[in-house]
Amino acid sequence: MGETPLESDGHARPPTGKAPVTGRISQAPGHRAGTEGEGGSTLARSPLRLEDLVSDRPALADLERGTPFADRHIGPRPHEMETMLAAIGASSLDELAAAAVPGSIRDREPGASTLPPAATEAEVLAELRALAARNTVTVPMIGLGYAGTVTPPVIRRNVLENPAWYTAYTPYQPEISQGRLEALLTFQTVVADLTGLPVAGASLLDEATAAAEAMTLLRRAGKASSPRFVVDADTLPQTLDVLRTRAEPLGIDLVVADVEDGLPEGELFGLLLSYPGASGAVRDPEPLIAAAHERGALVAVAADLLALTLLTPPGELGADAVVGTTQRFGVPLGFGGPHAGYLSVREKHARQLPGRLVGMSRDVDGHPALRLALQTREQHIRREKATSNICTAQVLLAVVAACYAVYHGPDGLRRIALRTHRMAAVLAAGLRARGVEVVHGEFFDTVRVRVPGRADEVADAAHAAGIALRRVDADTLGIACSELTTVAHLETLWAVFGVDDDAGRLDVAHLDVAHLDAATDDALPAGLRRTSEFLTHPVFHEHRSETSLMRWLRRLADADLALDRTMIPLGSCTMKLNAAVEMEPITWPEFANLHPFAPAADAAGTLELIADLERWLAELTGYAAVSLQPNAGSQGEFAGLLAIAAYHRSRGEGHRDVCLIPASAHGTNAASAVMAGLRVVVVATAPTGDVDLDDLHAKIAEHGSSLAALMITYPSTHGVYEAQVREVCDAVHATGGQVYLDGANLNALVGLARPGAFGGDVSHLNLHKTFCIPHGGGGPGVGPVAVAEHLVPFLPGRGEVGPVSAAPHGSPGVLPISWAYLRLMGAGGLRRATLTAVAAANYVAARLREHYPVLYAGADGHVAHECILDLRAISKETGVTIDDVAKRLADYGIHAPTMSFPVAGTLMVEPTESEDLAEIDRFVDAMIGIRQEIERVATGEWPVTDNPLRGAPHTAACLADKWDHPYTREIAAYPMGGTPGVHDRKVWPPVRRIEGAYGDRNLVCSCPPVSAFSS
Amino acid sequence: MGETPLESDGHARPPTGKAPVTGRISQAPGHRAGTEGEGGSTLARSPLRLEDLVSDRPALADLERGTPFADRHIGPRPHEMETMLAAIGASSLDELAAAAVPGSIRDREPGASTLPPAATEAEVLAELRALAARNTVTVPMIGLGYAGTVTPPVIRRNVLENPAWYTAYTPYQPEISQGRLEALLTFQTVVADLTGLPVAGASLLDEATAAAEAMTLLRRAGKASSPRFVVDADTLPQTLDVLRTRAEPLGIDLVVADVEDGLPEGELFGLLLSYPGASGAVRDPEPLIAAAHERGALVAVAADLLALTLLTPPGELGADAVVGTTQRFGVPLGFGGPHAGYLSVREKHARQLPGRLVGMSRDVDGHPALRLALQTREQHIRREKATSNICTAQVLLAVVAACYAVYHGPDGLRRIALRTHRMAAVLAAGLRARGVEVVHGEFFDTVRVRVPGRADEVADAAHAAGIALRRVDADTLGIACSELTTVAHLETLWAVFGVDDDAGRLDVAHLDVAHLDAATDDALPAGLRRTSEFLTHPVFHEHRSETSLMRWLRRLADADLALDRTMIPLGSCTMKLNAAVEMEPITWPEFANLHPFAPAADAAGTLELIADLERWLAELTGYAAVSLQPNAGSQGEFAGLLAIAAYHRSRGEGHRDVCLIPASAHGTNAASAVMAGLRVVVVATAPTGDVDLDDLHAKIAEHGSSLAALMITYPSTHGVYEAQVREVCDAVHATGGQVYLDGANLNALVGLARPGAFGGDVSHLNLHKTFCIPHGGGGPGVGPVAVAEHLVPFLPGRGEVGPVSAAPHGSPGVLPISWAYLRLMGAGGLRRATLTAVAAANYVAARLREHYPVLYAGADGHVAHECILDLRAISKETGVTIDDVAKRLADYGIHAPTMSFPVAGTLMVEPTESEDLAEIDRFVDAMIGIRQEIERVATGEWPVTDNPLRGAPHTAACLADKWDHPYTREIAAYPMGGTPGVHDRKVWPPVRRIEGAYGDRNLVCSCPPVSAFSS
Repeated sequence: MGETPLESDGHARPPTGKAPVTGRISQAPGHRAGTEGEGGSTLARSPLRLEDLVSDRPALADLERGTPFADRHIGPRPHEMETMLAAIGASSLDELAAAAVPGSIRDREPGASTLPPAATEAEVLAELRALAARNTVTVPMIGLGYAGTVTPPVIRRNVLENPAWYTAYTPYQPEISQGRLEALLTFQTVVADLTGLPVAGASLLDEATAAAEAMTLLRRAGKASSPRFVVDADTLPQTLDVLRTRAEPLGIDLVVADVEDGLPEGELFGLLLSYPGASGAVRDPEPLIAAAHERGALVAVAADLLALTLLTPPGELGADAVVGTTQRFGVPLGFGGPHAGYLSVREKHARQLPGRLVGMSRDVDGHPALRLALQTREQHIRREKATSNICTAQVLLAVVAACYAVYHGPDGLRRIALRTHRMAAVLAAGLRARGVEVVHGEFFDTVRVRVPGRADEVADAAHAAGIALRRVDADTLGIACSELTTVAHLETLWAVFGVDDDAGRLDVAHLDVAHLDAATDDALPAGLRRTSEFLTHPVFHEHRSETSLMRWLRRLADADLALDRTMIPLGSCTMKLNAAVEMEPITWPEFANLHPFAPAADAAGTLELIADLERWLAELTGYAAVSLQPNAGSQGEFAGLLAIAAYHRSRGEGHRDVCLIPASAHGTNAASAVMAGLRVVVVATAPTGDVDLDDLHAKIAEHGSSLAALMITYPSTHGVYEAQVREVCDAVHATGGQVYLDGANLNALVGLARPGAFGGDVSHLNLHKTFCIPHGGGGPGVGPVAVAEHLVPFLPGRGEVGPVSAAPHGSPGVLPISWAYLRLMGAGGLRRATLTAVAAANYVAARLREHYPVLYAGADGHVAHECILDLRAISKETGVTIDDVAKRLADYGIHAPTMSFPVAGTLMVEPTESEDLAEIDRFVDAMIGIRQEIERVATGEWPVTDNPLRGAPHTAACLADKWDHPYTREIAAYPMGGTPGVHDRKVWPPVRRIEGAYGDRNLVCSCPPVSAFSS
Repeated sequence: MGETPLESDGHARPPTGKAPVTGRISQAPGHRAGTEGEGGSTLARSPLRLEDLVSDRPALADLERGTPFADRHIGPRPHEMETMLAAIGASSLDELAAAAVPGSIRDREPGASTLPPAATEAEVLAELRALAARNTVTVPMIGLGYAGTVTPPVIRRNVLENPAWYTAYTPYQPEISQGRLEALLTFQTVVADLTGLPVAGASLLDEATAAAEAMTLLRRAGKASSPRFVVDADTLPQTLDVLRTRAEPLGIDLVVADVEDGLPEGELFGLLLSYPGASGAVRDPEPLIAAAHERGALVAVAADLLALTLLTPPGELGADAVVGTTQRFGVPLGFGGPHAGYLSVREKHARQLPGRLVGMSRDVDGHPALRLALQTREQHIRREKATSNICTAQVLLAVVAACYAVYHGPDGLRRIALRTHRMAAVLAAGLRARGVEVVHGEFFDTVRVRVPGRADEVADAAHAAGIALRRVDADTLGIACSELTTVAHLETLWAVFGVDDDAGRLDVAHLDVAHLDAATDDALPAGLRRTSEFLTHPVFHEHRSETSLMRWLRRLADADLALDRTMIPLGSCTMKLNAAVEMEPITWPEFANLHPFAPAADAAGTLELIADLERWLAELTGYAAVSLQPNAGSQGEFAGLLAIAAYHRSRGEGHRDVCLIPASAHGTNAASAVMAGLRVVVVATAPTGDVDLDDLHAKIAEHGSSLAALMITYPSTHGVYEAQVREVCDAVHATGGQVYLDGANLNALVGLARPGAFGGDVSHLNLHKTFCIPHGGGGPGVGPVAVAEHLVPFLPGRGEVGPVSAAPHGSPGVLPISWAYLRLMGAGGLRRATLTAVAAANYVAARLREHYPVLYAGADGHVAHECILDLRAISKETGVTIDDVAKRLADYGIHAPTMSFPVAGTLMVEPTESEDLAEIDRFVDAMIGIRQEIERVATGEWPVTDNPLRGAPHTAACLADKWDHPYTREIAAYPMGGTPGVHDRKVWPPVRRIEGAYGDRNLVCSCPPVSAFSS
């Protein structure tokens, strides 16, 4: 039979019959083929001329590789790519790269990367499982602002594991974002109700940065001229560290003081108290708040939301702001993040609130509708006048926390708090009964104990029993209870501490917990028992069964347009595939349930993953080192600028304080520079869109030895590979300045050019753009900072510069996503993704150019990974605005591109590599259809005030209503004709165009009474 | 400070001050409180009168328990329950139970259960993780019809882990089921294309039962009178076993024959061949098919779908039917199931096809639309004339398999097949090179080797290296390759087998795989290379990127109404919560990736879970033992009746062959009885809906010693607790008959009464009804059979009676769901769930009684867990049909109840315990709204041919179109007025009313050419 290889007759494969095959095979080299990743086969290099042996059948090694993940991540198929290249006028992706990317920055040969070769999805999951298995999850009783919590499975499955939630973008198009806006309004209500202050934002990055934001808020909101900010010494150490990092460049005089017996002498503009304190102690903040107010200062309180179900909220005790984390509301520990920080303020400070604020407004039909309120506060408008660079929020985690509150309701939360507190109280009682000294009499969840000289021994014994405690010092331990604490844990701990027989108590080892419980009072200050109601809105009372909560979540998700239903061609935001294989590991308990201050050995797997990822990112960007600590791009920017400033200082050039920023830069650039203590000087844009070189040289000359840095985005925010970037970098370096290369557009560079190799000293990356961490509806972001060798000592939290985030590694909980992406793609796959993204943008530009002017292009006429459609002339001529176009796209079932950035009156389109040709064409066809509709306005067929563009978006409800428009219902709802049945791509916006100004005038930013909806 | 317990001043808790607390505590009993489940606290029983110590604060043990899962599973809150009870006129659930449930059947005291106490979600996940950890997943190379496969993560996440897919019901309401109907049509197309036969059903239970269905299909479709069915001896052993079980009661003469050299002599009505065979050998079936045809017989071929991408399909070789499994198309092994079996036939046999068949039709607007075709074939209509009892399909798994084909496309599948085959070919070549005897020359994926006397030793060594092989006998092993096989596995196996130096070949230990590959021909018969195309429809070419597949899945899911958007009040189907916590474990690799014939030690965790579940179900039903093998309720029935028949035979009463069945029974009852070789005799229904006792006694008297069994559903299919059930059972027993108590309505009994305790000898249960396995859009089902002590030896597959399913334990992959449900609820929670379900049905009856007559009730006026709304008079009077009402409910955003079962012209409503009052009221209000609409037809305001009921359901597209109805668009679409914005419950059906008959007349049951959609 023909299948016996050694006796083969060579049928259809002539060479096998030439000679006794055995003899030839025995001389073969011993290496295994197929282990060199996605590169070419190694077989051809065999001295045996193996190609003679091989038929047209694929080699086993090729077959073994399976479908490369890159073929799943990248949208266009080869024949589609041919169509796209033909439209662009390029014959291959490599030709396009050669034409579009300036030779001066082009990277080494593609094969030079040291990234590991691409692995399959199954292989990557196996590797991640092996890493996960190297973590040891203990019962987390370390405290320090991170508590054990139970993520209800219904929330894990339907939010954290559901692309409808995690692939959504920031709700800048509110008409198609009502679901997450409602979830965020719910989050704000939870925070406002529990803290006792009426205005709460839609989440901040973590508790420490929220405290820093509160510090600067108090400074700009208050009237005191003093630069002094007093901080309770019993504040979480990581919060103190971040406050120090943030205060120094702003000239704030940070005073850490033991305030137990009152405020320190002297003037101050603000005060931060902790309630409970980091030690666990609960002290009444009211007298201190009053004292600070008397001195003209404002007061923020860092508070534990769960404790506030039992304790009088700071708002009722006079606080002006309250900050903290919502992590313990069901958000996995994740070795430190991501979690949603919070900040609430008095009504009069609403306009000072950093970050996003969701508010109620109404749509043109008068129905209530939500949108981001008071947007003029935000940095992307205020730019260099900003005092906060907060841009990303932690929406996905804020949604989880809001759901947790909705699911448990006020009674459930109170019960969880009571359980937590009672466990702590009984733990303390049992310890005292055993002769162990409990330091504080009043506490919520954390018991501080003194075990002179025995802290390490006891902590080790507890760890051996599966419980992690906080070692405060050699004599002191902290034990934090949580929703996870059980009586069995208490018994384990009592056993671990042992019994001090000298305590003179009998039979303590046999103390019955029930009796101890009965005999133990609460340990909360009697005068601080909460009496006010909270979470009275129906949403906190209607979804107590899993069925009801599941349906609420589905309803909210259905109101939103996320990547699971449409491309989101947002320029600069890189909304590409967040693959399921990348997402799966983040909810595995071994990654999700690690405490950030767990012993390093317990986090061996995650730490290796972090080290891999930092190394791979450094390799991809051409830098010496990367820190994953910044938990948003803005924080990466801030860290990078701090590094530059510290570097100058270390060389005795601390006077360098000018930061040049092109006019087209992201607003955060300027805001971050201000926060880092730099002066912003704007460099003009040339008519081509490039940096105006003449102005740049003039500014460099003007500021000379004061020049600290130039911040430049590459490719530019105009979506263009500027040809002269090396020249620009060199000019800055020549004057002693540093080059900050903003990595926002790295999706156009990976595998083609490395910022660290063509002039950058520092960059931040956006893992939630280029490296597939989902946008989550507006967060989490991860913004690693990458630096050249000379800046390595100045990375955040490494001694020279303080930390910028609460947790040492920022948000490790989502890092498996980017790790998996790099592992799956390999260097070759990444390069192909970049080229595909560039081709897609150029294809869109080529097809739409005749309908809308395309603003800016490189010297060769190509754009990079995004293109700007210029509607200014069209708007001027016809009265149709970019708003009309963006909202009209919703009627077509497509999410709008980026509006008016970086140029007002334009749309910036970034299709990314993940969209296939059919979807790109759907967008292009919609834009052409809209252009034709504009034409009908231009010709006067439709009045500018009543046409399908101005009327957009149209709800199904408005179709069912009376109709007196000059266009038909069919044109309103099915502009492309519509496909009947299940293939229809129609998506119905839940509301019509929202009136932003009305909402700002009538600010409602927590769940309003039900009657408000009846109008 | 007051918190020190031992020095407490007793503030607000007087007793603590009475005496030295320590002294009292030391006398406390040592047991821990809070370990006794959801029952009352044990504290009160303490001799210390602990209640005197406890304030109104909850005890720590209570707090520790957290929110009982039962409070999440059960919808109504306590205050809602009060409202419901008030409407019913009961003061408590217990009073309702006392009134509704006949005393004669009521169970022991609630506390008598030996079920473990309820655990929390976190505890149950931890226990399941511990069980999972006891499983050992090896590389599955056992074969036997179960292959290693990769479930693409995008499919796992968006189908298997998405409630929109898994909580859907069978698509009997096609207008709101277009998504899964399209997925099933895709499945049918995959099967039809690959097998080369034009008509394929929407899945069967597994390969073995599909083969049995093919056997009976050939018998009724063919013209041969011979009772002989010849089966290729190289058929999977489990298929042979199931064929034997199924053939015997039907009088089919099963002949297992080695057909390598031709058919055995003599007449036959049918032939089953295997292609490839169980041994792995691939033989040309064409000559045998021709020979069988010559003798007037029809031929079925059991084929491997993946192999058929490379091999000429049986349809092209003359086969009349093809059967098999689609497991290796991405469906997890799951220790045996659930997987989707398949069956395809020639067009002329379409009407003989068992199970469901999806077909194209059109809606009233002329748009193409899908629905179940040729429904008159199905058993639920044909009842005792049926020869198949197939009811459930394996929809969820069929969807997975279809998605796998869509994602890979024909080229991808071919490549996976080629990889699989090449691995096998090179494995064989390498083994031969090492002197190991490879038995067959032509094979697809399975290599049979002879290792005289060494089979155990080699299999053990492979197992130690992480690979499971098939031990055929002491001298023979089978090694099956799959998508998972790697070169490393081949090398491991070669090492395990060792080298036979006597083979005289040099250097074989250093054979280079690449060279071996190059030198090895394919091992497929040259004449059987597939030349025909397959999967040419665009759906198999459009979704190659993950983004595209994800969106296709979302679009399909959005077309369907599942439990994640609405209650599905389907009488008899028990559509209740499938909790996320129950669902999570089924996709864990330790449960998902076990081969059904893995060594028992490798499945220790799953086997323990199975043993637990069997024990718990026996306890709940009052039977001696339970078998989880039947993988659908129908199979449980069949197994139960086989047990009864075998029991009679064992006592020398094999002549007992009459099975009494009430007229109102589920159609499957009769079909199963026929399949078990019994004669069906129908017992009349009394006007009350109960079994007509007079007729029963008459029938018993008439059949006397021929009486084998009575099948009775309890509560009855009329949703009533019949008072005389004990009397009925006694009468049957008195005549020597056995009582089969159909467990379809067990949701009304759990915790209240146990069928095994009030007269049943055998019951089947539906884990997909009462025990929370999701319906999956129409499967998987699990139908355990429970028997009294005397029937235990006759459980399926235990020797006396053959197996009824392919895998020993049926579908263990989904059993963690039911295990978790029981573990989470505890006996108390289960009882409360039952009472709540009964209360909900009575509440619906109470509220709707004045609008629709409620048919049947128990002696006390109560219904059980469901109620029948009688529309017959209304229809007669007004012309409005139950179809109109059911379709109109879709306009209200609610899934219709069960139609015309058990009484034509009625709707049967089962709200279950999981719906809260708001959702039940939404349904009731919709039904009242519909009643008012009917009134407007009755008064002539709307003509019977043009009104919102007859026009239902209304699509959004029809609203945008011209409108010439006597009712408004608003009434059509928003009959309840609608809530603006995100809270709107409106769901848009994708198509309008579908014309069933049109589709049956123009049968299209695989993906039609795209042009078909353009009409």
